[in-house]
Amino acid sequence: MSDLALLSVTEAAGAFAKGEASAEAMVRACLARIEAHDGRINAVVRLDREEALAAAAALDRARAGNAKLGPLAGVPMMHKDMYYRAGKVSGCGSAIRRDFRPKATATVLERLDAAGAIDMGTLNMAEFAQNPTGHNRHHGDCHNPWNLPYCTGGSSSGSGAGVAARFFAAALGSDTGGSIRLPASICGVTGIKGTQTRVSRAGAMPLSFSMDNVGPLTRTARDAARIMRVIAGKDPRDPTSAAEPVPDYEAALTGDLRGLSVAVPREWFFDGAEEAVVKAFEAALEVLKARGATVTRVSAPSLHAVGTYVSVVSRVEGATIHAEWMRERAGDYATHLSGRLYGGYAIPATWYVEALSRRGPLLRQFCREAFAGHHVVATPTLRMRVPTLAETDIDASPDNWARHMAVSANTRPFNYLGLPTVSIPCGFDDRGLPIGLQIAARPFAEARALMVADAFQRDTDWHACVPAL
Amino acid sequence: MSDLALLSVTEAAGAFAKGEASAEAMVRACLARIEAHDGRINAVVRLDREEALAAAAALDRARAGNAKLGPLAGVPMMHKDMYYRAGKVSGCGSAIRRDFRPKATATVLERLDAAGAIDMGTLNMAEFAQNPTGHNRHHGDCHNPWNLPYCTGGSSSGSGAGVAARFFAAALGSDTGGSIRLPASICGVTGIKGTQTRVSRAGAMPLSFSMDNVGPLTRTARDAARIMRVIAGKDPRDPTSAAEPVPDYEAALTGDLRGLSVAVPREWFFDGAEEAVVKAFEAALEVLKARGATVTRVSAPSLHAVGTYVSVVSRVEGATIHAEWMRERAGDYATHLSGRLYGGYAIPATWYVEALSRRGPLLRQFCREAFAGHHVVATPTLRMRVPTLAETDIDASPDNWARHMAVSANTRPFNYLGLPTVSIPCGFDDRGLPIGLQIAARPFAEARALMVADAFQRDTDWHACVPAL
Repeated sequence: MSDLALLSVTEAAGAFAKGEASAEAMVRACLARIEAHDGRINAVVRLDREEALAAAAALDRARAGNAKLGPLAGVPMMHKDMYYRAGKVSGCGSAIRRDFRPKATATVLERLDAAGAIDMGTLNMAEFAQNPTGHNRHHGDCHNPWNLPYCTGGSSSGSGAGVAARFFAAALGSDTGGSIRLPASICGVTGIKGTQTRVSRAGAMPLSFSMDNVGPLTRTARDAARIMRVIAGKDPRDPTSAAEPVPDYEAALTGDLRGLSVAVPREWFFDGAEEAVVKAFEAALEVLKARGATVTRVSAPSLHAVGTYVSVVSRVEGATIHAEWMRERAGDYATHLSGRLYGGYAIPATWYVEALSRRGPLLRQFCREAFAGHHVVATPTLRMRVPTLAETDIDASPDNWARHMAVSANTRPFNYLGLPTVSIPCGFDDRGLPIGLQIAARPFAEARALMVADAFQRDTDWHACVPAL
Repeated sequence: MSDLALLSVTEAAGAFAKGEASAEAMVRACLARIEAHDGRINAVVRLDREEALAAAAALDRARAGNAKLGPLAGVPMMHKDMYYRAGKVSGCGSAIRRDFRPKATATVLERLDAAGAIDMGTLNMAEFAQNPTGHNRHHGDCHNPWNLPYCTGGSSSGSGAGVAARFFAAALGSDTGGSIRLPASICGVTGIKGTQTRVSRAGAMPLSFSMDNVGPLTRTARDAARIMRVIAGKDPRDPTSAAEPVPDYEAALTGDLRGLSVAVPREWFFDGAEEAVVKAFEAALEVLKARGATVTRVSAPSLHAVGTYVSVVSRVEGATIHAEWMRERAGDYATHLSGRLYGGYAIPATWYVEALSRRGPLLRQFCREAFAGHHVVATPTLRMRVPTLAETDIDASPDNWARHMAVSANTRPFNYLGLPTVSIPCGFDDRGLPIGLQIAARPFAEARALMVADAFQRDTDWHACVPAL
């Protein structure tokens, strides 16, 4: 391997465990790519160069001493700047938290640490994780490694761009309306949002506690399976975390799609979809069919209500969380964000309660409509080709509003429904920007969505494409 | 026993089990009292005379056949008209549900049935359980058996008045802001609201799902313990019901208060309290001390925020539940109720989320303030002497608003905090109306509150006083 930064999570862990690559060499390879290219990408907020090298050296010594190695030992990662590490600044993409040093470390970081992952620092993100494009007025926008004037998707902009640029093998993102799956799709990598409550949120910045999810962006579905196994599961520090046992996700990656039934909803996901997207999506379905899956078009009228409720819930909860800062420091937010928050204060409580109380019934309805006899639901991750930063900048012009909102149209419903959902790359458009395939499964069936994604990646190379930097 | 209707729950169950009284004789005794006196009290909405006699006869045959008897076998009861029984009208004190016949039976009714209780029919209540005085425009107001022009307390008006009048041994009420404890206190009987989520709410009319509780009104704490053992505990039909095991509450009634520490908060509960109430309360503390308890005055400043949040949450949830009827049939509600609901539509969602999200922290704070080193919190159930129906009628005059709201001032905080709370009679005022003692315990410590209440009743006779009808 000429460039160790090109290793996936499972490859890097394997190379380290076998002694084929030292952790230090892998970290240095990543640092080199970051230092060479991040000036144009702007994915990194803080590079913990010395700490990362020290952690790598410690791991190399542990390996030399035949210590027991975790499943992520030696794997270089960086994370969205909203996962708290005690004593380190967690800026949350904002000016308001520029100097915020949390007292406790996020459970997910503790679990990754315990598994041997190396944390190299923090990544750019939408301010307080509240936009789907990744625009950030405080740190500057993050740029798409495939084509710099294009957006990265958000809110986990640095996570998507950095994994695509091979700055690190994987990154945590967070997903409240698509913020893992959108940058994954737009940057051409793999991202998973688990079932609502699947991964602990203790020590993660809250945006909308009814719909926030923690999850990884990686190069492959296998990588995502490895990391989800580490971070998922009950956490006493997060009383909302699910007690559901965590299976061995990697063991589920059999590649065998015989007997698997894929449902494709006619409603919602294709409204105004661009031709390039539909074409890549249909070609992806053919790949699944060739592995033995059947594909059925289904009707899911429940999706229309779902699309509205997700906005009501996230705006209300976001506005509540930001109430004190909005009273005292509204001018420190980007205009589009303070505008979004102001709107949240005017939503009647009864509409919020209605939105939440219909969540269970609408989930049951969607499961009846879409999963009756079918194992997964497939859709394009975005309906549109990747837009530029300029044409989705709503602070620059209100004319960009519709395009900005359209970015997350296909991801948001799964936050309201709480279903596990994966996005994987399935092609490129005429401008060289990635296209994403979204796969959703029933509650707690992350393994099923990952299995389909992995099977797809066995027959395709989209996930292995590296942007020329 | 000259009048079998005077038997308490445990006395009636004991007399039936020993063959000292037939179920039919006990039901007939209750029917006779209802038929003689309910014309003035107005506690009963529907008397299921023939079904009750048939159920009693069946129980008498079962006993004669040496069948295994439940812990409530033969006990005559009636319930607030909001517990659904399949095929029977459940009017919820309203015009809107005058003809509502639910398809399924409430879990609590199923549990009482299985325990051998006899259900004689349905009871008057505040319209949709939404006032603390028991006023009802559709069925007519319920009258206090101790003094007819005085209110019964609400919303479980018929439950309180009927137990006091010895129309039946016990009745289910529901308590969202005090609706069990207020009629218990005002009518001179015992009432318990368990820990939030303690008793299943499946098949009970919802008012405010964050604060609704199901519980019994009885003559004694021992009776309440018997019934709570039957109705409490996890119910698959109510996903919000707690999995916490249900202890044998009666076994906890030792009468021994040595080492027990009672906290009396200085804040909130005594603001504007009337002298007669304070005097009876202080005398009640002396009874507890005489049994070995110590009493400490504590400071609990958290109560001021609690008092506001409880109203925000119940108004919002009530308004959401009634949204469709309020669009189509607002004129079918009592004026005070539609006015209350209209207000709920104007509350911002962020205030509701704030109210709910501070619930956990405020509960912890209150437990630190009031329960640090203490076992129970004691307060008067009402600050005021029992008011008349006329002086708390807010449809008659807005001048009555403050008095109407003051009725539930001392009960509401425990709905927000979710703590188990008992009210027992502890005296009479100068007008011959009862005064109540409220005892709250830590989450799931119902047994502790009942134990204190039972100990008190071993040394006092207030619970044994019967109004002259």
